[in-house]
Amino acid sequence: MADIGIVETKYFTFAEPPNELALQCKEKLGPITLAYETYGQLNLEKNNAVLIAHALSGDAHAAGFHKGQSKPGWWNDLIGPGKAFDTNKYFVICSNVLGGCKGSTGPASINPKTNKPYALDFPLISIWDMARCQKHLIDFLGINKLLSVAGGSMGGMQVLAWLVLFPEKIRSIIPIATAFRHSPQQIAFNEVSRQAIMADSHWKAGNYYAGAHPVKGLALARMIGHITYMSDESMAEKFGRLRMADSEPFKFTADFEVEGYLKYRGDNFVRRFDANSYLYITEAMDNFDALEKGSLEKLLHGHKVKVLVMAFKSDWLYPAYQSKEIIKACKLSGVEASYCEINSTYGHDAFLLETEEETHLITHFLKKVFFRYEVTGDYGA
Amino acid sequence: MADIGIVETKYFTFAEPPNELALQCKEKLGPITLAYETYGQLNLEKNNAVLIAHALSGDAHAAGFHKGQSKPGWWNDLIGPGKAFDTNKYFVICSNVLGGCKGSTGPASINPKTNKPYALDFPLISIWDMARCQKHLIDFLGINKLLSVAGGSMGGMQVLAWLVLFPEKIRSIIPIATAFRHSPQQIAFNEVSRQAIMADSHWKAGNYYAGAHPVKGLALARMIGHITYMSDESMAEKFGRLRMADSEPFKFTADFEVEGYLKYRGDNFVRRFDANSYLYITEAMDNFDALEKGSLEKLLHGHKVKVLVMAFKSDWLYPAYQSKEIIKACKLSGVEASYCEINSTYGHDAFLLETEEETHLITHFLKKVFFRYEVTGDYGA
Repeated sequence: MADIGIVETKYFTFAEPPNELALQCKEKLGPITLAYETYGQLNLEKNNAVLIAHALSGDAHAAGFHKGQSKPGWWNDLIGPGKAFDTNKYFVICSNVLGGCKGSTGPASINPKTNKPYALDFPLISIWDMARCQKHLIDFLGINKLLSVAGGSMGGMQVLAWLVLFPEKIRSIIPIATAFRHSPQQIAFNEVSRQAIMADSHWKAGNYYAGAHPVKGLALARMIGHITYMSDESMAEKFGRLRMADSEPFKFTADFEVEGYLKYRGDNFVRRFDANSYLYITEAMDNFDALEKGSLEKLLHGHKVKVLVMAFKSDWLYPAYQSKEIIKACKLSGVEASYCEINSTYGHDAFLLETEEETHLITHFLKKVFFRYEVTGDYGA
Repeated sequence: MADIGIVETKYFTFAEPPNELALQCKEKLGPITLAYETYGQLNLEKNNAVLIAHALSGDAHAAGFHKGQSKPGWWNDLIGPGKAFDTNKYFVICSNVLGGCKGSTGPASINPKTNKPYALDFPLISIWDMARCQKHLIDFLGINKLLSVAGGSMGGMQVLAWLVLFPEKIRSIIPIATAFRHSPQQIAFNEVSRQAIMADSHWKAGNYYAGAHPVKGLALARMIGHITYMSDESMAEKFGRLRMADSEPFKFTADFEVEGYLKYRGDNFVRRFDANSYLYITEAMDNFDALEKGSLEKLLHGHKVKVLVMAFKSDWLYPAYQSKEIIKACKLSGVEASYCEINSTYGHDAFLLETEEETHLITHFLKKVFFRYEVTGDYGA
């Protein structure tokens, strides 16, 4: 299958004062810019649009290549001509989340009121707010109803927020390796990551933009994250107890390959991510509860949304029981929902790696949802 | 069942120059002091002695109360009159490990060559070295053969080191919730804990003893540890998504109860533990491989050691499959070994908490091992 080729990030700005966006936390924010990319073409009926939502450290660059770059977007295996999200058929949109640091407005953005980075003056954002911003983008693109909203991990939380907030605006959802709400264990891992950042003497209560950044703390947060993204089994397969050939003789230098891997991942991450964004986004994940507004039955008002839920056997960060809770709530609300638990040793990372199985499931699911449009004109509402 | 009452920590010093202990890392260390406690009486035959080995953050104070203290030793539920390690029958010994900070020689101890704390001049220690030091203590106490060596987690690793190093000196072993060697996932969690300590600007390459200690880094290491000691289920039972009543309005203050708990545990820990000890001891755990010297069959030279292995269903830090590997190796070597996987939601902490089931198993096991002495005089060697 071919790749999309060269793609470009675009920018959409809205909520210009005095029309700031009212956030879940009651504060207002504006203007807001979203970085986004689109792949494929919106058809004349405007009924082939799919919104992709990214995970904690993702961005708008979900597929294709940026000019001069050899690394494709983060879900390139799933998005492109003939792929699961087939750009020959569908118009695929992905935007960087509110609070992010890859082109969308976040704590590192300039606060128009002070002409300095917001830092901790940035308001607490929520997964709900992320979805509301995406809705503004979808409106701007002239799309009344999305064929699907799909995403894994925190992306899946945004998918669930769409289901609850805008059931009349979506035909289907594909939440992958996600949860209605974080368990205390998930909160705990995020909390130690935040504490790692805030313990860094360079963090300075978030006001580090003019000087050295809290890179040690952020790298540590990322290392902790990576342990939870893998599985005991995948780590055993990948590293075992192998030692690094070139480890230094210092007593506590990374020596095992797994230590070197984590260090590499941590050091890489700080070059591309903002520490305050990490705080805001993980806090949004922890605070999110998709059902805090009531049961799905009440929320969906009889809107017919088709649901495909996927989980992965070795994923212990977002265990399959959380996906089953989503399926259960859907079924209890009369929502047409399918569930697949994919055999994988990759742990939580599987949603980025088990693309063959995902492709089968998503391809057929989307075809079915789209086919209903074309043949019956049944828009379900 | 009664408690032991008031107990006191004693100290034993050996390896005085020029008779320093040759460590696994080839360096020599001396003098070495071990803090230790004993409970019950050594009988005339000197065949009722049980050595207890503690885990990462444990110490010699395994049972009873220190004068004026209301908190008993860390395994008080298992050690005492009528308890699993019945002090009416057995003579129980527990010592703080080499490299520790609770009275035994470790990186915070004064280096006699410089009259300053060793800090990182302290040699790399191993689980083997910990066991060798315990052997010196056992010799000093006039015990030729131990009835049993028992311990959980890192304590279990010391138990396995005893099995490999001194099979002729032990009648039985009870390794609990432990492993022959750390998996890369176990190494990874220790590594991020070490990185948390070393990222603290107060760590100063280990030379912090004269000034502020790296308390933020050490607290963070402990928080990470605590997540791995619990289970998804026990955290859900204990905390759910409850919020703290008195959480401050600051954006990233601990707000969920699970966050407050971790903070409390972290803050408490730094008052009683030395950061460099944490580095040395976790490194010793990661480097340990009980079978690096060969198969059990070869190592045991036909010595008849009875083995009781315990694991806990929800323990994902030292999963049951690691205990089964111990059982398998024992059986393949013709060693009489029993295995019990205890149902518990407590995670790794279960070895400290599931004392009722442990009591049943240990009581009967020790009785059987001890009975063989008394009736047949069969010392097995």
